[in-house]
Amino acid sequence: MKSIDLNCDMGESFGSYRIGADEAVMPHITSANIACGWHAGDPSVMERTVRMAVEQGVKTGAHPGYPDPMGFGRRFMELSFEELRNAIVYQVGALRGFCSTHGIDISHVKPHGALYNNAMVDETVARGIAEGVASIDTAIPVFVLAGKKGQNMARICRENGLRVVFEAFPDRAYTPEGNLAPRSMEGAVKTDPSEIAERALMMAEEQRVVDTDGNTIEIEAETLCLHGDTPEAATLVRSIRSTLETSGVIVKAV
Amino acid sequence: MKSIDLNCDMGESFGSYRIGADEAVMPHITSANIACGWHAGDPSVMERTVRMAVEQGVKTGAHPGYPDPMGFGRRFMELSFEELRNAIVYQVGALRGFCSTHGIDISHVKPHGALYNNAMVDETVARGIAEGVASIDTAIPVFVLAGKKGQNMARICRENGLRVVFEAFPDRAYTPEGNLAPRSMEGAVKTDPSEIAERALMMAEEQRVVDTDGNTIEIEAETLCLHGDTPEAATLVRSIRSTLETSGVIVKAV
Amino acid sequence: MKSIDLNCDMGESFGSYRIGADEAVMPHITSANIACGWHAGDPSVMERTVRMAVEQGVKTGAHPGYPDPMGFGRRFMELSFEELRNAIVYQVGALRGFCSTHGIDISHVKPHGALYNNAMVDETVARGIAEGVASIDTAIPVFVLAGKKGQNMARICRENGLRVVFEAFPDRAYTPEGNLAPRSMEGAVKTDPSEIAERALMMAEEQRVVDTDGNTIEIEAETLCLHGDTPEAATLVRSIRSTLETSGVIVKAV
Amino acid sequence: MKSIDLNCDMGESFGSYRIGADEAVMPHITSANIACGWHAGDPSVMERTVRMAVEQGVKTGAHPGYPDPMGFGRRFMELSFEELRNAIVYQVGALRGFCSTHGIDISHVKPHGALYNNAMVDETVARGIAEGVASIDTAIPVFVLAGKKGQNMARICRENGLRVVFEAFPDRAYTPEGNLAPRSMEGAVKTDPSEIAERALMMAEEQRVVDTDGNTIEIEAETLCLHGDTPEAATLVRSIRSTLETSGVIVKAV
Repeated sequence: MKSIDLNCDMGESFGSYRIGADEAVMPHITSANIACGWHAGDPSVMERTVRMAVEQGVKTGAHPGYPDPMGFGRRFMELSFEELRNAIVYQVGALRGFCSTHGIDISHVKPHGALYNNAMVDETVARGIAEGVASIDTAIPVFVLAGKKGQNMARICRENGLRVVFEAFPDRAYTPEGNLAPRSMEGAVKTDPSEIAERALMMAEEQRVVDTDGNTIEIEAETLCLHGDTPEAATLVRSIRSTLETSGVIVKAV
Repeated sequence: MKSIDLNCDMGESFGSYRIGADEAVMPHITSANIACGWHAGDPSVMERTVRMAVEQGVKTGAHPGYPDPMGFGRRFMELSFEELRNAIVYQVGALRGFCSTHGIDISHVKPHGALYNNAMVDETVARGIAEGVASIDTAIPVFVLAGKKGQNMARICRENGLRVVFEAFPDRAYTPEGNLAPRSMEGAVKTDPSEIAERALMMAEEQRVVDTDGNTIEIEAETLCLHGDTPEAATLVRSIRSTLETSGVIVKAV
Repeated sequence: MKSIDLNCDMGESFGSYRIGADEAVMPHITSANIACGWHAGDPSVMERTVRMAVEQGVKTGAHPGYPDPMGFGRRFMELSFEELRNAIVYQVGALRGFCSTHGIDISHVKPHGALYNNAMVDETVARGIAEGVASIDTAIPVFVLAGKKGQNMARICRENGLRVVFEAFPDRAYTPEGNLAPRSMEGAVKTDPSEIAERALMMAEEQRVVDTDGNTIEIEAETLCLHGDTPEAATLVRSIRSTLETSGVIVKAV
Repeated sequence: MKSIDLNCDMGESFGSYRIGADEAVMPHITSANIACGWHAGDPSVMERTVRMAVEQGVKTGAHPGYPDPMGFGRRFMELSFEELRNAIVYQVGALRGFCSTHGIDISHVKPHGALYNNAMVDETVARGIAEGVASIDTAIPVFVLAGKKGQNMARICRENGLRVVFEAFPDRAYTPEGNLAPRSMEGAVKTDPSEIAERALMMAEEQRVVDTDGNTIEIEAETLCLHGDTPEAATLVRSIRSTLETSGVIVKAV
C-alpha cells in the first residue's frame, strides 16, 4: 500500500506578527518545517510550534533560511560555503534545543525560500547545507525538490551520507522536463482545491503528475508540500488528506 | 590540594568586527564562555571558537545575552519569563549545535552582561535562565556571582536541579558585604597585574578576598573570571595562571 | 467652534508581515504616526504609508521606538541619554527622507510603546526624546499623554523649545487622578463603539472624561489616539469621526 | 591648477565594535563616506562621525549599504528596484538627520561594498540608487567608479538629473581596459606607501594611471578613495596628501 508524507512550513510568525494558520493546519499534516529565527520565527514561536507539533504527533523538522527577516528569506544572499554550513548548524542547533526540551529530536531539514531554490542550482549552497546537516547528524534527512532540478542537491546530500526525501508540490504546475513551471507562467499555481487534491493523489499513488503539455510524467516524491498561509489553508489541507486516505493512501511521516 | 577554574568570555567578534584576543588567551584558560549570536558572535565565530577551545582542551560554555547587538547585551531589556526561558533554549541550543559537530557538549552556561547582572537581582530573570537551562539538561552547571548577591540566583538554579558554580572576579574590588564594588567607585577595577594575580591566588587558596575596608572576607568560588578584551589580556591571564600553579593550585575546569 | 485631531499608529507592517488596516483607516484620521523601521516598519512600508497619507491629506508624524522588532518596541530597554537622542534623530531623519520625496515634512513626533510610556515616567528618556526632536527642528511638535502623568514630559519638551500636543485615549479608562487605568483593571479598555465615540465627543467638546469613579474630570487634549489594528478598526474610527462631525466638532490636524 | 578630492569610508564602528582609525584619518581627507546603520554604523557612531567631520571641515556623504551587518554589506543581496530605492531614501534620510542637527547637509552619496559593486554591473541596482538619491534631492552628487565599468551607472545617474563624481583607487591595479584588477590577481592591491602616493599624484595631475601591462591609460577622476581601516592608514593618507600638495595639487572637496 502506498504512503505519503504531508509537510508544511510552520512557525513563521515573529513577535507581534502572525503568519500562517498553524493551529488549524497542524492536525492535518505529518511533518512540520519549523522556522529557526533567521528569516522568520522567534524563540517563543519555536517553543509554541514544537509543542503543538508534539501534541499532534507531527514530526519536527528545521526550516533554516537566510539572515534576512525584512525579505522573509526570499531574497538571494551570497554567502560563502563556510557561512552557509555554519548558518545551518546554528539554526538546526537552535531548533534542536526546543526539540530536546520536549524529549524529541529534529526529524528533517528543509531549507527555506531563496536558500532552498539556490541549493537546487548552486553547488556551493547545496554543499554548505549538506555538510552543515551532516556535521550535526547524518541521521537527519534533507527534503529536496523532486524532479530533474533536485538531482544535483540529492547527489551532494548522499555524498555526505544523508538520506534524501524528495518533495513534490501538488499546487504547482510542472514542465515536461519535470521542473516547477515559473510562477510568472499562467496556471503555474493551482488554486482549485479538488484539482490540487487530485494532483496530490496521483503523486502519492502513481508517482506521476500531468505536465503543462497535458502529458503524464514521472515525479518521484515521498513528501508533498502544502501551504499554510492562506485563510483557506486548513480546509484545503484537510481535503487533500481526506482524498488521499479515502483512496487508500496511508498518510504518515517519512 | 586546591584547584580552580579560569573562565573568560570568548567568541564575541561579529562579522568583520574583532573583539578579544581569543587566540592568545585561549591556551591559558580552562573554561570559555562562548557568545551565541545575540549580543555578540555569529555562526562562523562560534564554529571557530569552539574548534579553538577543543584544540586547546578548554571547556565550551554558552554565554547567552539579550537580543541587542548594538548595546553588546549590556543594556537591560524587559523580557518576560517565557521570553527569557526561550531565549536561553535558543542560544544554548545553537551553541550546542557547534559543540556536537566537534563531538563534545556544552560544559556550562554563563549569562552575559545585563542578563547576568539582572539574574542576580530579579527573580523572574533568574527563573527564566534556570528553567531554560534545566529544560535542556540539568547536567549543565550555571555560573553564578559568588557572594551575597548571587545567593538568590543560586537557590533558584538548585531548585531547578542545576549545579551552581560560583565565580569571583580577581580584578574587581569587593565591599565588606561581599558584593562587587560599583565601577563608579575609585579602585573598583584593578589593573595592576601582580595585584590581580595575588587576589586570584587568595581566592583560589583561601576562598577569601581583601575588601574595600582592608579586611579579609570569605568569598566562595570555584571559578575565576578573567578578561580577554584588552591588548595585555593574554599576558595578564598567563601571569595569573603561572602565579596559581607556582603556588601549587591546580588550574582545571570545574 | 471646537476642533480635534485624530491620530493613529500606521506603517507597522514589516516585510511579508502585515499589521493594521492602514488602507481602511487612513481616510478617516488626520494624523498618522508612522513607524520608522526599528520596532516596526521597513523602508518600503514607510514609502507606501507616507504616499497613502499624502493622498488622503493626512499629516505624517514619526513614530520612533526601541530597536526591538522581536518585542515590537513594547519592552523597556535601558538606553543612555545620548543613545536615546541619537535614536530619535536617526528614525525621524529616516522618515523625513520619505516625506521629502513627497514634498512634505514631518508633522509631529509620537514615541512608540515602551519608549512612550517610559518618557512619561523617566526624565532621562523624556530629555533624550525632546533634545533629539529639538536638535532636528523645534517646529516639530511632540505628542504627550494628556493628564497628570504627562506633565513632566511636557515641561521638558517646552524647555527644549518644542510645542506639546496632549493626546487622550477615548477607549481607555481614566483614574480620578487623570491617569490611564492599568490594563489589568476590569474595564480599562473600552470596546463598545458607541461608548468610545461618546467619550471621544466629550473629550473634544468639553475637554473632560468620566473617570473610573463615575465623576467627570478635566482632560486637556488636542488629539485623540485611535487604534487601527483590529478588524473593526476602520468602522470604529469612521463612527467616531462621524459622531464628532455630526455634533459640530471640526476634525482636523493640529 | 589641478585639484582633487580625497574620500574615505568613515563611521563603520558599531556599538562596542571599533573599525577604522577615524579620528586619525579625518584631518587629512576632504570627503567622508559615513555608514548609515545598515551594513555598519549606529546612531551614536553617526552623530560622532558627523560632528568630527564638521569640526575638521570635511564633507559629510552618505555611505548606504545592504541590510547585512553580519556580512558588513559585502555580500550581494537580491533586492528589487523598489527595495533598493527605498533603502537609499531611508539611509540617506537617517544620515541627513544628523547633518541637519549640525546645520549642514549631505554632500554626496557613495554606496558601500556589494551595493557599490553591483551598481556598476546591474542596471536595476544602479537605477534604484539613482532614483533614491534623486527623489531626495538632485543636488546630491553620486560617487561612481572611474573607468569603463562605471559608465553605465554614470549614465543612469545623469538621466536622473544627478551629478556624477568619478572616483579612482590609487592603491588598486588597473587593467588595460581601465577596470580594477580582480583582488585575486597578484599585485592587485598596492601596499607600498610611496607607490600609492605616486599613483595618486598621476591620477590627480594627469588623469592617468599605469595599467597592469605597464602602459599609461586615461582615468578620469575627481576624487580618490583612500582606506582608513589599517593601523597605518593615517600615516598613508597624510603622506598621499602631502605628496599631492607639495606637487601643487589643490586638495579640496568636490
